[in-house]
Amino acid sequence: METHITKRALAAHLAGERRQGRTVGFVPTMGALHEGHVSLMRRARAENDVVVASIFVNPLQFGPTEDFTRYPRDLEGDAHRAAEAGVDLLFSPGVEEMYPAGTIATRVELGPIGETGEGRWRPGFFSGVATVCLKLFHVVPADRVYFGQKDAQQLAVIRRIVADLDIPVDVVGCPTVREPDGLALSSRNAYLDPQARRTASAFPRALFAARDAVAAGEGSAAGVRWVVEAHLEREPALRLQYVDVFDPVSFAPRERIEGRAILAGAAFVGGTRLIDNVEVASQIGSHVPEQKEMAAG
Amino acid sequence: METHITKRALAAHLAGERRQGRTVGFVPTMGALHEGHVSLMRRARAENDVVVASIFVNPLQFGPTEDFTRYPRDLEGDAHRAAEAGVDLLFSPGVEEMYPAGTIATRVELGPIGETGEGRWRPGFFSGVATVCLKLFHVVPADRVYFGQKDAQQLAVIRRIVADLDIPVDVVGCPTVREPDGLALSSRNAYLDPQARRTASAFPRALFAARDAVAAGEGSAAGVRWVVEAHLEREPALRLQYVDVFDPVSFAPRERIEGRAILAGAAFVGGTRLIDNVEVASQIGSHVPEQKEMAAG
Repeated sequence: METHITKRALAAHLAGERRQGRTVGFVPTMGALHEGHVSLMRRARAENDVVVASIFVNPLQFGPTEDFTRYPRDLEGDAHRAAEAGVDLLFSPGVEEMYPAGTIATRVELGPIGETGEGRWRPGFFSGVATVCLKLFHVVPADRVYFGQKDAQQLAVIRRIVADLDIPVDVVGCPTVREPDGLALSSRNAYLDPQARRTASAFPRALFAARDAVAAGEGSAAGVRWVVEAHLEREPALRLQYVDVFDPVSFAPRERIEGRAILAGAAFVGGTRLIDNVEVASQIGSHVPEQKEMAAG
Repeated sequence: METHITKRALAAHLAGERRQGRTVGFVPTMGALHEGHVSLMRRARAENDVVVASIFVNPLQFGPTEDFTRYPRDLEGDAHRAAEAGVDLLFSPGVEEMYPAGTIATRVELGPIGETGEGRWRPGFFSGVATVCLKLFHVVPADRVYFGQKDAQQLAVIRRIVADLDIPVDVVGCPTVREPDGLALSSRNAYLDPQARRTASAFPRALFAARDAVAAGEGSAAGVRWVVEAHLEREPALRLQYVDVFDPVSFAPRERIEGRAILAGAAFVGGTRLIDNVEVASQIGSHVPEQKEMAAG
């Protein structure tokens, strides 16, 4: 595996690969790699001639009170994991390489899809994500990019900008990887002490219970929220921030569940904010098989 | 010359050209081609293996009271002019090809560079321009794109998004082409009747007079505005909307002229809005040769 820290060196390398007609798969990450990221890299490895991964903690997508400075960073461990997962080229630029003037005024604005769900609690977050991803897609011209369903709204946002801006890349969404007790893998799980870690698993269990309720006939978002809240009553150390039902494409909130939808939310355990989501499928509307999930390897 | 009306057909053709290592030059236009556009196409012809031009009147960059529906359209004449100028591929999509859902919520937002000058009078204009150009750059992966200095702020905006978003293309700015009496070529000149046409030429003459004043030592934007306004007093049929001095890169307004700057403005002759600009160069600050201009062929 080769590591590049400049756009220029990476672009030169990739131009050579593409001239030879080789396909490129790209996995953008913020590092602190776990089995969720590794599953994306393995999928990219299986589907492309060349696999590129990026590690960049993007200041544009953090709010002023968020965890940009303390976000976990482990470049050496990450390089090891990426190489093992079959990555050919690792791109790990510094902030000054991506934002030579410190920041940029240019932003991808998204409209409603950036303002619902996570966007309500993290103003500017999806605009920051979309902007850096667009930059990375220009630096790493790829045939396919890989994102996890764990960040379901982010995946929907990426699909939206790819469609709206005619970005020549296929977006591949990959199943959430979970611990045996259900907790979705996340770099931020590293913030949890053992007790908080145990508490955290109540969040996915509550979402699974709500998913079962929908499969059993619950058709309203209010009913689904009630199931989640009732489930979490037993866990006072976990504070639910929101849980709502969303359209899987537009991420518009839905009051009625018809066909496929995403049940997504955020919860605090101590000072750590966790997000998670499950696909729910109602009998009403067209039947679509539920989204697959993977056990952590 | 081949004409394509779908992104897919154009992309397939261009992918073949690029696999053979051929360089691509791209001239995006709104059609109603004149010698200004032709000069961009000839320049692209001289510098690239393949020349692509697009003709698309972009609804996103017109305000609700502006001239989208009556903007001049002449696809047959344009195709003839483009072929004569050496264009290999003409892309002339319909609105439904570029905006399958009618419009898009996604926008490139620019910050201050989109809000000064023209942006003050045309809210959303530069965001609409930047958004459609970004789409076109994705549809037409080119080595070089060509824009006229006639639209100086647009050129600055394109340079800004290319830098901020790491778009892999070189931006080539080309000199304004003028009629013998000084009027900058513009598709909107077609709106002018013979008398309005004569009146219109007072606008560039006033800008030239101000440029001479700067070369002779006038160093303030207020002084420059006074020269332009004094010059236009003799032309009551021409109504100046604004004229200001701008930084050539950031398009921030400047009150003092030091080194190179852009004197740009807009004026109405009857219902027709004309824009124009000249580069001014003060003795104060570093000396840079003034921008070249071309006579219409």
